[in-house]
Amino acid sequence: MVNSPIGIRLGPSPSRQLSDLLKTQAIAADALKIDNQLEIRAATLAEPEHGLTEEVLEETDVLTWWGHVAHGQVEDAIVDRVIKRIWQGMGFIALHSSHYSKIFKRLMGTSCSLTWREAGEKERVWICNPAHPIARDLSRYFEIENTGMYGEPFVIPTPDEIVFISWFEGGDVFRSGCTWKRGNGKIFYFSPGHEMYPIFFNLNVQLVLRNAVRWAAPDPERWIDTCPQIPADQAAERITVKGPRMHKEGEEGYR
Amino acid sequence: MVNSPIGIRLGPSPSRQLSDLLKTQAIAADALKIDNQLEIRAATLAEPEHGLTEEVLEETDVLTWWGHVAHGQVEDAIVDRVIKRIWQGMGFIALHSSHYSKIFKRLMGTSCSLTWREAGEKERVWICNPAHPIARDLSRYFEIENTGMYGEPFVIPTPDEIVFISWFEGGDVFRSGCTWKRGNGKIFYFSPGHEMYPIFFNLNVQLVLRNAVRWAAPDPERWIDTCPQIPADQAAERITVKGPRMHKEGEEGYR
Amino acid sequence: MVNSPIGIRLGPSPSRQLSDLLKTQAIAADALKIDNQLEIRAATLAEPEHGLTEEVLEETDVLTWWGHVAHGQVEDAIVDRVIKRIWQGMGFIALHSSHYSKIFKRLMGTSCSLTWREAGEKERVWICNPAHPIARDLSRYFEIENTGMYGEPFVIPTPDEIVFISWFEGGDVFRSGCTWKRGNGKIFYFSPGHEMYPIFFNLNVQLVLRNAVRWAAPDPERWIDTCPQIPADQAAERITVKGPRMHKEGEEGYR
Amino acid sequence: MVNSPIGIRLGPSPSRQLSDLLKTQAIAADALKIDNQLEIRAATLAEPEHGLTEEVLEETDVLTWWGHVAHGQVEDAIVDRVIKRIWQGMGFIALHSSHYSKIFKRLMGTSCSLTWREAGEKERVWICNPAHPIARDLSRYFEIENTGMYGEPFVIPTPDEIVFISWFEGGDVFRSGCTWKRGNGKIFYFSPGHEMYPIFFNLNVQLVLRNAVRWAAPDPERWIDTCPQIPADQAAERITVKGPRMHKEGEEGYR
Repeated sequence: MVNSPIGIRLGPSPSRQLSDLLKTQAIAADALKIDNQLEIRAATLAEPEHGLTEEVLEETDVLTWWGHVAHGQVEDAIVDRVIKRIWQGMGFIALHSSHYSKIFKRLMGTSCSLTWREAGEKERVWICNPAHPIARDLSRYFEIENTGMYGEPFVIPTPDEIVFISWFEGGDVFRSGCTWKRGNGKIFYFSPGHEMYPIFFNLNVQLVLRNAVRWAAPDPERWIDTCPQIPADQAAERITVKGPRMHKEGEEGYR
Repeated sequence: MVNSPIGIRLGPSPSRQLSDLLKTQAIAADALKIDNQLEIRAATLAEPEHGLTEEVLEETDVLTWWGHVAHGQVEDAIVDRVIKRIWQGMGFIALHSSHYSKIFKRLMGTSCSLTWREAGEKERVWICNPAHPIARDLSRYFEIENTGMYGEPFVIPTPDEIVFISWFEGGDVFRSGCTWKRGNGKIFYFSPGHEMYPIFFNLNVQLVLRNAVRWAAPDPERWIDTCPQIPADQAAERITVKGPRMHKEGEEGYR
Repeated sequence: MVNSPIGIRLGPSPSRQLSDLLKTQAIAADALKIDNQLEIRAATLAEPEHGLTEEVLEETDVLTWWGHVAHGQVEDAIVDRVIKRIWQGMGFIALHSSHYSKIFKRLMGTSCSLTWREAGEKERVWICNPAHPIARDLSRYFEIENTGMYGEPFVIPTPDEIVFISWFEGGDVFRSGCTWKRGNGKIFYFSPGHEMYPIFFNLNVQLVLRNAVRWAAPDPERWIDTCPQIPADQAAERITVKGPRMHKEGEEGYR
Repeated sequence: MVNSPIGIRLGPSPSRQLSDLLKTQAIAADALKIDNQLEIRAATLAEPEHGLTEEVLEETDVLTWWGHVAHGQVEDAIVDRVIKRIWQGMGFIALHSSHYSKIFKRLMGTSCSLTWREAGEKERVWICNPAHPIARDLSRYFEIENTGMYGEPFVIPTPDEIVFISWFEGGDVFRSGCTWKRGNGKIFYFSPGHEMYPIFFNLNVQLVLRNAVRWAAPDPERWIDTCPQIPADQAAERITVKGPRMHKEGEEGYR
């Protein structure tokens, strides 16, 4: 019931131990560990800098975020740091109530509102594109026997792709798996994950997590920019300065 | 050289006088006043609440934003208020250096970086779709004889539509007119508007402003939501509560 | 059970009588006639040119298409003509099995495959954005007591907006209301409409049709282009021809 | 000056010889051969089935298409076959005048019109996202000293991403590198490639081709669907058939 980002690093490098985690996060992390090409570590709200130092983020390819009660306790400076790393190319997977996390809301630019109900009802997750990498090895649909309901309207910018739409026993529907790109970071939102139900023990949910981490892996180049000035003498075409200016050569723009 | 949002209200209602504005903003507002079906008022950084009280925003259909040096001085509480009103349906037009305003960056979720140069060079604004409402009554292109350059890479989420792309004498290009939707607010970014050049005197620029205000006008209904709980006994299908829950009936979710 | 496009013209002009139509189409047209600002006429497969002459299309603002058994009998020349008119700005509303019509498939560029079942089951249509013009005056959802099922995966390009997602008694979900733009034509696909059930008698379905027609109304300007050559002496910047060319001055490109 | 698709197969398998090709295509293919992890073959208009048999397409991961004068001579049956293979996941790269090829127009659903000029002018290709895989190892921009001009308005559906925008000496701009997805096929349009200029000798153009082929490589699973019926007794939730139906159990839908 704390905010527990789980950082995943792809590829061959010294593995680190999972910190002591609450059950929900530990299971999600365990699910990922099945894929032994992934190197997984965890970070929790209680750690200094929530465990997300510059160094940790530098080495992280994909960050999986699970948060609920304590959204407001995540420090703004860390939010800024994580967002900048996403813009550079780090993948970001937002789970369940993380739709209302500071980071996800900042990436979306919308309210991220949805409707919800806690009744232990059945959810059936439909695959909208069976060949999507995030749906790999799944059948037409999979079921979660008891869970909380997240329903439409879900206030998000139009996703790049909708991978999953959920059907609920109580009569609702929800865009439960959606992708976006912000800067060079690939973003995936996946709604299952209520902490009072054993969602992350579900083998299909675990498969989605592993698929999603691979899908969200960064492209080879990192890049981020902060409004560089291109002086007139470095213009692609030769030009003569013809008017007044506010900034000196080499000066930064206003922030 | 201050942040001067210009609020525009469409339709028949008592007109207000423009406050005293710096030149740049006054001209932009004047350009809009040519369209006598628009009712225009202005708000400036120096006013209490930057002139953007709840009441003012309630009555505003489209907010045009021009800001530069003082982005950081815009109060976060006002930023939040404006963004909520955009989500409800208020149109938002971000001009020139407002690409780096708090509001625009929050709506986009990206760095909004671009490259720039102040050399008084020529800009030619190309129309990518001559039948787009924002391009109404324009020819194939129009020119701005002397201006600052804004160039690619422009780090934005893929726009819904690109209305304008600019060519620069110094050899650069820029997506100078782009649209998005966030919640129910229609958003238009338009890059011309450097305050040291008479950009807002340009008749084509003025035409774009008027077209854009009409394009960004809200749809009839306002709507915003904040994660309402749908209790089990109000589910669309009859269900029995089958599991534990974290929240009481009628309780709000975590923020 | 034939292909029955229904042409709708907005605004003040002499009304025409509906041709004799099969029940399904007549009801859909009747639903639209409730809005007495709309001028409605119908066209059927059996008519010469399927009733869609150049003149009829010229005068049509929004074309509503319902087709099923006879998709293959719609002449390619008429398909081309309708598509060109859509690119110019005519709205296009594809109903139910029209997801597999020649026109819709050509506009989408995908297979437009879906899954389906005829069991007279209940469909609940959820509104994904209560303030969307196509959802105007609807509640959180509406129900169709007995209908055929259309389910995911629905193979379409990512819609600009998803207005409706349907829940089915048999456990399926479907993106039942989606928008796109092709050229300047606004396109809306709406899946309810099985001809063996009284779908078009449903007051909410009728409301959606009327809302959609208004939403799809063209912007003021018509525009279509066919690769015009811009000769060197009409270039925006003065240039000297510096290389060989395949085409003579004023010649058309290859088709 | 013929339509010459170039099929590229990624990965370890017996290489085939390039057929005898006209200069333009041969150079493009040579550019790709530099990357020795790619296995490249060519196909030309004159071959039976234009060299694109079912077997060839089965083995092709990414199809690069260059066509101009003879768009109309490409057989519709082959167009259908290529498009189905794209929907399954084969990448498709459309070069230069292929914006007007039957295949590209079918995938886009728009007119694909643009403006053009043959004056041997300079083109500067700007990178809109330096970290995009298709822009890998490029600088801020690259130049093509003499080429034909392709300019806005370019009538395409909003691209998923814009990788390149070109600046022209004659004053025009063009979205010269754009991506889309149709079904599971990744599509990239790249405008440089005029056959009377040595465009495909340009090392940066060659780099773009190689990057694009890698970017467009298929995801592991192939999938295509044709509206399967899901009988009532295979529904996810138990349902009783409650109404009439047009189709028998197991029957196909209407095409």
